[in-house]
Amino acid sequence: MKKYKFIKWFYVILLLIIPWRMTAQQEVIQQIFREALTDYTAYNHLQWLTEHTAGRICGTPEAAAAVEYTYQLMKQMDLDSVWLQPVQVRSWDRGEPETGRIISLNSGVIEVPVTALGWSIGTGNNGITAHVVEVRSKKELQRLNRDSVAGKLVFFNQPMDPAAISTFSAYGGAVWQRTNGPVLAAKLGAAGCLIRSLSIEIDDIPHTGITRYQEGVPKIPAVAVSTRASNMLSRMLKSEPGLRFYFRTTCKEGPEMNSYNVIGEIRGADHKNQFITIGGHLDAWDTGQGAQDDGGGCMQAIEVLRLFKKLGITPRHTIRAVMFMDEEVAQRGGQMYAKTADHKSEVHLAALESDRGVFRPMALAVSGNKKQMNNLKKWAPLFKPYQISLVHGGGGTDVGPLKKYYPDLLLMGLIPDDQRYFTLHHSAADRFETVNRREMQLGSAAIASLVYLFDQYGL
Amino acid sequence: MKKYKFIKWFYVILLLIIPWRMTAQQEVIQQIFREALTDYTAYNHLQWLTEHTAGRICGTPEAAAAVEYTYQLMKQMDLDSVWLQPVQVRSWDRGEPETGRIISLNSGVIEVPVTALGWSIGTGNNGITAHVVEVRSKKELQRLNRDSVAGKLVFFNQPMDPAAISTFSAYGGAVWQRTNGPVLAAKLGAAGCLIRSLSIEIDDIPHTGITRYQEGVPKIPAVAVSTRASNMLSRMLKSEPGLRFYFRTTCKEGPEMNSYNVIGEIRGADHKNQFITIGGHLDAWDTGQGAQDDGGGCMQAIEVLRLFKKLGITPRHTIRAVMFMDEEVAQRGGQMYAKTADHKSEVHLAALESDRGVFRPMALAVSGNKKQMNNLKKWAPLFKPYQISLVHGGGGTDVGPLKKYYPDLLLMGLIPDDQRYFTLHHSAADRFETVNRREMQLGSAAIASLVYLFDQYGL
Repeated sequence: MKKYKFIKWFYVILLLIIPWRMTAQQEVIQQIFREALTDYTAYNHLQWLTEHTAGRICGTPEAAAAVEYTYQLMKQMDLDSVWLQPVQVRSWDRGEPETGRIISLNSGVIEVPVTALGWSIGTGNNGITAHVVEVRSKKELQRLNRDSVAGKLVFFNQPMDPAAISTFSAYGGAVWQRTNGPVLAAKLGAAGCLIRSLSIEIDDIPHTGITRYQEGVPKIPAVAVSTRASNMLSRMLKSEPGLRFYFRTTCKEGPEMNSYNVIGEIRGADHKNQFITIGGHLDAWDTGQGAQDDGGGCMQAIEVLRLFKKLGITPRHTIRAVMFMDEEVAQRGGQMYAKTADHKSEVHLAALESDRGVFRPMALAVSGNKKQMNNLKKWAPLFKPYQISLVHGGGGTDVGPLKKYYPDLLLMGLIPDDQRYFTLHHSAADRFETVNRREMQLGSAAIASLVYLFDQYGL
Repeated sequence: MKKYKFIKWFYVILLLIIPWRMTAQQEVIQQIFREALTDYTAYNHLQWLTEHTAGRICGTPEAAAAVEYTYQLMKQMDLDSVWLQPVQVRSWDRGEPETGRIISLNSGVIEVPVTALGWSIGTGNNGITAHVVEVRSKKELQRLNRDSVAGKLVFFNQPMDPAAISTFSAYGGAVWQRTNGPVLAAKLGAAGCLIRSLSIEIDDIPHTGITRYQEGVPKIPAVAVSTRASNMLSRMLKSEPGLRFYFRTTCKEGPEMNSYNVIGEIRGADHKNQFITIGGHLDAWDTGQGAQDDGGGCMQAIEVLRLFKKLGITPRHTIRAVMFMDEEVAQRGGQMYAKTADHKSEVHLAALESDRGVFRPMALAVSGNKKQMNNLKKWAPLFKPYQISLVHGGGGTDVGPLKKYYPDLLLMGLIPDDQRYFTLHHSAADRFETVNRREMQLGSAAIASLVYLFDQYGL
């Protein structure tokens, strides 16, 4: 009888505890969102980063300044540890402002906005003038042969699908032109490459980004042409297939340079060798300020630590903010972070990279198995007041490599609204002014809340 | 037996028709979104409207230009009818740029950004200099009496709650200060009124908006003070309660003017006297371009008609786009539209006003009864690909008056993301550059899709 009584009381207490625990979770998450929405620290630091270290592609002095700035920022935060993790990176210099011109017998010479693709070779001082062969799809490319292409410029002009609701899928469908276009064109003997700028809008700003050469295939110079100018060039080619295009770039690759991932952590009270990583990438294309891609993501990661400190939340596991170096070019920061973690026998539980812009968060993603996703569902009501859903997915270029060493690692992700991202991405338009503080901070709070729940209650 | 056979075939045919009909709906909605996302007409027209008719508060030449522009736009669209509906409006002139100064013994004279509240009286040429009484809530106001207020400036400084996730609810909680502050202060003998600018951010741009005087209560001049300056003033008052504030405004009310609602319609094939109204308001505060509030909403309404025409959708009921005049001041356009509809024995089925900014649409709202909401639910899968949910709600300042004459009217609404709205609202920051074409056009497509479904299938 006594035993039964004990069991009865056990359940009564459990029933009292369960709703209380839900309320405690709700309360902490409410505090996190309130603190994030009323504070300007992360936003002001993003302003400094974007306005003072614009151009911080890996291997540049601007990137070095960004490393030092974020290191000092975290040093002042009373964290348990802040350090630099060495990463060797490639370097490249854009050189003089690029020139692009349509040379038409009908219409004369028309200047058009172009930008060298990242790590492209330059044209040499005199530039290149050649006829143009337009290609609007992979299929059209297959119809070309060496006779029709040799000595010419291949103009890859497949638009990002403007009717796609997911702009990331529109980007995914068109990015092959920028990464592989120069190699595909060079294999047919092309002298150079014009790529339709990867913008979801018709605009006058060319978007840059990495291009990849291949060993054994000649390197040819490549530029992105703004979408509006690409439309014009395409129209003009229909009536005047013999027109020529001139472009001049003086960009060139430099030596490998020393750089760093910047890491700060709050040590776990219960499991200091078990890690939850929150990251962004510190490098950004040299043509813009890198506010949405990805200064904002970096500041969100640091903000998660600030929120924990400010609200007095002691994590059970060690929480790290990592500013990864070299996401845009060779992803060496992410690889070094994973390799070092393994080397030091760290145990990594979860990792999230915010690298889709800092727009209003629509969802948090977790790459869990069936059981974990079922557990995750129980947290959905906690995020409902903030209109954030919990979905399957997650990951990021720089946290992906961890998975190789930690197969059980949970990849997580912040999914912001993506309608505005690909008007800015990799271009001069990616500026601080495009960041709305509330949107950015809703994202910081969303990440902090997910980390808090996972750290305290697991999945 | 023959009868049973007939019934059996009836059901077989029904089963064949139902899925086909769903597919047809999906297809039309897909066409609507594709056309909206790939077209620039509405966006380009919004650019013209905002850049050429900025300052178009009712009763101004700018408002008259906006009437003429949108009338001509619709005239060129091959609609069945386009006309101007006369509305008499109040007029007001802001006068010379406003001046605001904190006059401190400790810190000297500090200029602060102020803007006259709409339809406020001016201070006279010499301005007002007086001591300041700060009030941070309705409760604090109740503690004041004539002795403590007479001859002073009442400074209403209750912030919009920055931690509110719905910025509209934050606005709703604070707007009493702007609309009623001057009357409440004047009843206690105040000489003037300072209102903390209704911005959700700490910034330097004062936001204007209508204020209301009351018969029998003296009219006192009122300005909005930017949120950052309000914080400063509040801090300074703590250490120096005797500081004074100077402001000068030369605004004044003018005569009543003739103006218009601008209306275009596509006549219904089956029920030409039954109407579905889509609207925005054409007037906008004189300090900005009125891009988000509400030029964008107007252009979305016209775009709905363009989408119907372009895609060859023949509506069963008459679809109207209405640019309402005078939403911001006395709502006479909406009242006139409703009264005229009743007068002409029109039958109005549904009405939607887009007036929450043209950000990414999160939901469509319908004010249906239980049965109608249950029917609405069946359309939810049609909007899922666009991440737009269907919720209960809807309405708008200018379509609300219809409900008085048509109790069965369905009010509908477009609910865009609201995180950015109250940094722009009623201020110089409400400019064309804040509009993202895709976000605006997702909204146009959402409205057009709801109108299409309601028109063809009812609720």
